[in-house]
Amino acid sequence: MKNILIIGCGLIGSSVLRAISKNKIAKKVFVYEKSKTNISKIKKLKLPCTILTDFKKAVPNVDLIIICTPLSEYKGIILKLNKYLLPKTIITDVGSSKEKSHDVIKKTLKKGISWTSSHPIAGSEVSGPEYGNKDLFLNKWCILIKEKDTNKKHLSILSKFWKKIGSRVSIMNSKKHDVIFSITSHLPHLIAYNLVKTATDFEKQQRYELIKFSAGGLRDFSRIAASNEIMWRDIFFNNQKNISKVIDLFIKNLRAFKKDIQSRNEKSLIKKLIDAKKVRKKIIKLKQDINKPDFGRN
Amino acid sequence: MKNILIIGCGLIGSSVLRAISKNKIAKKVFVYEKSKTNISKIKKLKLPCTILTDFKKAVPNVDLIIICTPLSEYKGIILKLNKYLLPKTIITDVGSSKEKSHDVIKKTLKKGISWTSSHPIAGSEVSGPEYGNKDLFLNKWCILIKEKDTNKKHLSILSKFWKKIGSRVSIMNSKKHDVIFSITSHLPHLIAYNLVKTATDFEKQQRYELIKFSAGGLRDFSRIAASNEIMWRDIFFNNQKNISKVIDLFIKNLRAFKKDIQSRNEKSLIKKLIDAKKVRKKIIKLKQDINKPDFGRN
Repeated sequence: MKNILIIGCGLIGSSVLRAISKNKIAKKVFVYEKSKTNISKIKKLKLPCTILTDFKKAVPNVDLIIICTPLSEYKGIILKLNKYLLPKTIITDVGSSKEKSHDVIKKTLKKGISWTSSHPIAGSEVSGPEYGNKDLFLNKWCILIKEKDTNKKHLSILSKFWKKIGSRVSIMNSKKHDVIFSITSHLPHLIAYNLVKTATDFEKQQRYELIKFSAGGLRDFSRIAASNEIMWRDIFFNNQKNISKVIDLFIKNLRAFKKDIQSRNEKSLIKKLIDAKKVRKKIIKLKQDINKPDFGRN
Repeated sequence: MKNILIIGCGLIGSSVLRAISKNKIAKKVFVYEKSKTNISKIKKLKLPCTILTDFKKAVPNVDLIIICTPLSEYKGIILKLNKYLLPKTIITDVGSSKEKSHDVIKKTLKKGISWTSSHPIAGSEVSGPEYGNKDLFLNKWCILIKEKDTNKKHLSILSKFWKKIGSRVSIMNSKKHDVIFSITSHLPHLIAYNLVKTATDFEKQQRYELIKFSAGGLRDFSRIAASNEIMWRDIFFNNQKNISKVIDLFIKNLRAFKKDIQSRNEKSLIKKLIDAKKVRKKIIKLKQDINKPDFGRN
């Protein structure tokens, strides 16, 4: 590839940029970033890119555009990009929710232009280009979305791109994507936010400090609940239907747990605890987490 | 102190043992452990202790007994210990729930013998003496329980003991303890177990593998949900009343979150996400977690 354009250069965008540079994938990388703070950080970090102030000159000459902004910014960006896009341009995003954003993209994108959606399963609770990491995508899954109207050539090139920066690629449609990530990512985030909210509400009710004793469990949830609020608002709104369903399933199961505890149903409770424990081993075997007690914190 | 007896030498017991040895707190440490597997591990690890097969000879000569077993074993242990206990013997435990176990202890313990309860806020998802760590208690809170009938001399000696192995001590009654830890530790564990159960239920419903995509959030919960099932069954049963209350508060808040998402109440949702985010900073400032994105996993 000759030229790549990254739109939005926070944690993910700057990690893509660093990975492209590390793996020598493009001759030139352009970055478009609306935040002045981020621009000055990118300059200070001397990230290997050319910062764009408008799309006019660069866009007709780029082979790949990667949108790394929150989902709610897609529409505005597409409207700005449209007149410079060519059918050969590969456009992708890294968004965590797909079905609804596809509707927006379809409606907004100029006719004859293809969009091929990506979702690298990588990130952390911090935001900003200073936290980017050239190895963020190494051995991580990257989901590519394939629909009836997907441009297969673009999909194939994009698949090679993610593999070159170290990802394992899995292809599925946006519906399946949104179902899967409602339970493996969106609900966990919502639950973490909700647990932290419940703890702060409870602290107010009790009128004594208790967050300071959070090393026994709460602290782990607080990390996830420190994630970017704009990004997560967009995901929750976009994948609302699937998330609502898994919330209901979660509440149903929680009520059953409560019942087991209240009725001292030892057999049922122990079975649940043992079954849950097995999943950890599976996750480690699947290389989805490090195999160190307490994430190696001690 | 001359002699200390540790009953139950798993993760916590063996960490106490290692910490005593590191800080040269006792001349001799006895260990009583019912699991043959653990005994052979202790021998193989050459942990600095004398393994007891019965209490007869040693107990009258120990200054401090630390019970590091699940809560459900207290009664049986006390019944075995009773005839060898002296009023000067300091007896403590490391259990995570206090009110109900105090009732059992009061009923079972020989008259004239004091019990002073401890709860070091330390541990991890793994079990067994091989995971013990001499620095497990360093800079961690240790809660000491003070009731009307608490032996103040024993409390004072015990406080010095935990401080010597690096802990920060906080004193409260068992009622307050159980309220605080229902939200900072017990509910987080229950929620983690419940989320993992919900994910596995959902996987069965959908009939396709999805646990393999758990790096986006679920994996964190799976670590906590890999904790020892006997220990957690006992905690859930013992602190049932407080846990039930925080489950209800949690469900109420989760329903409100769902409502915000379904009605696209941006203002309310964003406020919740931002408020939750602040807690992470507080937890790090209070040194309850490491200040590294993603727990330093990447």
